[in-house]
Amino acid sequence: MSAKIRLYVEHPLGGGQSVPLEKGQAHYLFGVMRQTVDDDVLLFNGQDGEWRATIAEAGKRGGTLICAAQTAPLRMPPDLWLMFAPIKKARTDFIVEKATEMGATRIIPVMTEFTNAGRVQRDRLQAHAIEAAEQCGGTFVPEVAEAVKLDRLLDGWDTARQIMFCDEALAGADAGLPTSSELVAPWAILIGPEGGFSERERTRLDKLEHAHAVTLGPRILRADTAAVAAMTVWQQALGDWKN
Amino acid sequence: MSAKIRLYVEHPLGGGQSVPLEKGQAHYLFGVMRQTVDDDVLLFNGQDGEWRATIAEAGKRGGTLICAAQTAPLRMPPDLWLMFAPIKKARTDFIVEKATEMGATRIIPVMTEFTNAGRVQRDRLQAHAIEAAEQCGGTFVPEVAEAVKLDRLLDGWDTARQIMFCDEALAGADAGLPTSSELVAPWAILIGPEGGFSERERTRLDKLEHAHAVTLGPRILRADTAAVAAMTVWQQALGDWKN
Repeated sequence: MSAKIRLYVEHPLGGGQSVPLEKGQAHYLFGVMRQTVDDDVLLFNGQDGEWRATIAEAGKRGGTLICAAQTAPLRMPPDLWLMFAPIKKARTDFIVEKATEMGATRIIPVMTEFTNAGRVQRDRLQAHAIEAAEQCGGTFVPEVAEAVKLDRLLDGWDTARQIMFCDEALAGADAGLPTSSELVAPWAILIGPEGGFSERERTRLDKLEHAHAVTLGPRILRADTAAVAAMTVWQQALGDWKN
Repeated sequence: MSAKIRLYVEHPLGGGQSVPLEKGQAHYLFGVMRQTVDDDVLLFNGQDGEWRATIAEAGKRGGTLICAAQTAPLRMPPDLWLMFAPIKKARTDFIVEKATEMGATRIIPVMTEFTNAGRVQRDRLQAHAIEAAEQCGGTFVPEVAEAVKLDRLLDGWDTARQIMFCDEALAGADAGLPTSSELVAPWAILIGPEGGFSERERTRLDKLEHAHAVTLGPRILRADTAAVAAMTVWQQALGDWKN
């Protein structure tokens, strides 16, 4: 019962279920973490909660685990997307990690006019989200979407989803999150690039009835700080931090 | 007026004031940033606000700036300390950077029973705080204190300062920040180590009338995430994010 290692698998989990391991996972579990047959590991797949599983076979190229008992149900976070303009690699990785911990259900890299970042490697960011969920006891892993241009994202927007749009130009202004009951869910948070939104982008966002400009205090925050702060504000007001 | 470079100096600032540069700052300003005589720079010292200053002398080992006009008053954040158990080097640096952006007035590395970190280099962390203030438009730089053991810190505690104590053992519980008017200021936030507080530490904190256990939602957060989230909660409820 002292299983501490948590592993995300893309395989159904359930009582007695046999779960095959990929080569990379087998290397991590048996090579790096020195686990062996009969040791217990915690598994989750983002759908079936967390299961204690026992190692039945351990090899260099793979292995098999057998699910013993469910240790936690699936805990879905509220329906909140995090959309952000990619920045330097390390800080982009960081935003994905933090969004996972803070309970985003979907993470979307958004290219704005002032976004100053190269190609976004979706697979690498998805791996970061998985690792964050493994380390933080999460049973759900947000999907990292392909990077998309802000204009295209807004063109196809489902207006049932409100947008909390963090505008650093509002620093210190009186602009809080609307918390009226009809605006409860679903939501998406939009964090701008280090250079802020362009005037054209800001005008477009301001005109959208489902977009709400919100200030994050009187100080200018970096994009990664703003992501955590904005998700805190939202989870407290409208999400699952409400007491 | 297009001065973009912000530099922290340990020197009084005021109209016509001459400000000498140290060797390292001269190297940065003239060597790295290619500034030269007559160029403008923004200076702050944590006390006199922000000043536009003109380069009067530029040399390899130093230089002189002359203050022209104040561009921003000193904006003191509310009296909030951030106390945290140091973790891995990069994440400790990160916490100091984020605490500066979020408006901490003092940053204290705290050694708890489960703290698993080597020596804390105060000077390096202080330099991080200065850099964060330079980059984020701050006019105030929090002081980074020497690392101190939690027990010693609590032994000498001024009980006029409330402690917001973020206990991951409370994840998902109903424990919010008290916001009654007599608890307005000053405060300190205490973030535990990755392994949490020990039973003995938790018991001691729970007994303190001026310490308040607060939950940061149902998910377990890393210490660096918890620092930003806790400061967001505090600034919104009791600090200068209040609308």
